[in-house]
Amino acid sequence: LSRYPFIEPDMETWAKKFRFYTEIKVRFSETDALGHLNNVNYFAYFEQGRLEYLEHLGLLNILLDRNSETMPVTANLECHYIAQVYFNEKLKVGVRVNQIGRSSMELHYIIYIPARDLIAAVGRGTIVNINKNTGKSTPIPDSIREKIGQFEMM
Amino acid sequence: LSRYPFIEPDMETWAKKFRFYTEIKVRFSETDALGHLNNVNYFAYFEQGRLEYLEHLGLLNILLDRNSETMPVTANLECHYIAQVYFNEKLKVGVRVNQIGRSSMELHYIIYIPARDLIAAVGRGTIVNINKNTGKSTPIPDSIREKIGQFEMM
Amino acid sequence: LSRYPFIEPDMETWAKKFRFYTEIKVRFSETDALGHLNNVNYFAYFEQGRLEYLEHLGLLNILLDRNSETMPVTANLECHYIAQVYFNEKLKVGVRVNQIGRSSMELHYIIYIPARDLIAAVGRGTIVNINKNTGKSTPIPDSIREKIGQFEMM
Amino acid sequence: LSRYPFIEPDMETWAKKFRFYTEIKVRFSETDALGHLNNVNYFAYFEQGRLEYLEHLGLLNILLDRNSETMPVTANLECHYIAQVYFNEKLKVGVRVNQIGRSSMELHYIIYIPARDLIAAVGRGTIVNINKNTGKSTPIPDSIREKIGQFEMM
Repeated sequence: LSRYPFIEPDMETWAKKFRFYTEIKVRFSETDALGHLNNVNYFAYFEQGRLEYLEHLGLLNILLDRNSETMPVTANLECHYIAQVYFNEKLKVGVRVNQIGRSSMELHYIIYIPARDLIAAVGRGTIVNINKNTGKSTPIPDSIREKIGQFEMM
Repeated sequence: LSRYPFIEPDMETWAKKFRFYTEIKVRFSETDALGHLNNVNYFAYFEQGRLEYLEHLGLLNILLDRNSETMPVTANLECHYIAQVYFNEKLKVGVRVNQIGRSSMELHYIIYIPARDLIAAVGRGTIVNINKNTGKSTPIPDSIREKIGQFEMM
Repeated sequence: LSRYPFIEPDMETWAKKFRFYTEIKVRFSETDALGHLNNVNYFAYFEQGRLEYLEHLGLLNILLDRNSETMPVTANLECHYIAQVYFNEKLKVGVRVNQIGRSSMELHYIIYIPARDLIAAVGRGTIVNINKNTGKSTPIPDSIREKIGQFEMM
Repeated sequence: LSRYPFIEPDMETWAKKFRFYTEIKVRFSETDALGHLNNVNYFAYFEQGRLEYLEHLGLLNILLDRNSETMPVTANLECHYIAQVYFNEKLKVGVRVNQIGRSSMELHYIIYIPARDLIAAVGRGTIVNINKNTGKSTPIPDSIREKIGQFEMM
């Protein structure tokens, strides 16, 4: 049985589902006085991975377009810490869309340390497409839905 | 019904349970290109709140003591974003221990904006007491359990 | 003789010239694996102090106004580290305009630790007013020059 | 004539002196509400470059060795901002030792954007070798002096 409800059916199978990875190297300014990568910065890596994932699919411009009427916002994020990470380690940060709803998507994250063949952290989060004027959720355009569906083979 | 399973029985009642708050002002370097407080830094505020909570109870030295055989580590963290936060806003970050188990504690977090009478974010996370040598979970000392129990009136 | 050319006539006299201070508390996420405040974050404190200084003089809106044709940009920054700073220390960050030229200003910075009666760092930097379209330097408006001149009694 | 006293004899010649570069990609969490790389984070890149330079020369362990009686500390840092840098840009951060004294070294820094063939920033800083117990400066060991001298062909 998995300790994390979103990891299914088991960690090994779940970890194999990721089709997009980016490389991140731990900066010294990202460590803390406990001598390891500060807990907070795992979320910076998730964010960086998420944006590069969207860029890879050609969707980043939509996100950062100031003139667009809608924009995706992060509704929630969570991280489960499995192993400590240290200065200068090279990480692979995996991102995938696990599910697309009408106006929201669930993303999954993994942080893997190749040199130690170790999963350092796993996570998930929800992105919601909102109308900038009303602040209310609004449908994800079909073009985006299709691009992601194709990439993730959903 | 609450959208966040850990908020009970409802947001208003839940928010009143916090007995410890610290003040945090948003730094410019903590904003991002979307013009608001970067998602990542909410977790820096949770962390700062958590450590000041422990300090308030006289437990911070135990946490940062390099000679101790045990130390509490963050097992997981999650944040639900409710309202955007901007540069220079003054926030109240609330922290409480919701539950203490044998070797772990569940903490709850709230970020409140007094000037706008608004809850900006809510969160939770688990801390586990581990043995530094074995890396395995180890019982939380009774002295800590009592101090927290008294403060939280559990 | 001073080790830092911009400190005149001596550190003690120089330190007394500051008329604006803001308080900053060191966050845990701002420490690093050497156990102290990371070198980088002194500049985050300078920046926060600089913006609160401008806010105090009613000049912050001009800086952050997206519709303005001009904006002040940071041309350079330097910091001289005198004492190590630790987690949770309360600092006073002083900022003053040392000199105003046609299109640029020189700001001075000090980071002081009241509880230890210690200067932790001193610094300076140049801000240049530029035209957003051409990127070229442009005169600082008289209204700003006057407000700063009055505040600093220059 | 150079605007920066440490750039000699001119920017082009100075820029060619760097023998060590590392690659850094701008993270979204490192941008700010002005839409570009926050001024503070240039110093995080200098620091990352400095540590990777020392690692490249086999000197990093000495720096991070908790049992060593001496350690190098950053005495000062400065950055001159030349061009704005944006999210996801790939940078080359160059580091070199410009001068070695008895107990201190002067390092130079350059941040270059290959895709735009542009120097984004230049900088310098002093590192001082200190005795951890007394806090006083202490001679740089000959072995370090030689390794750096060889690498920089000084």
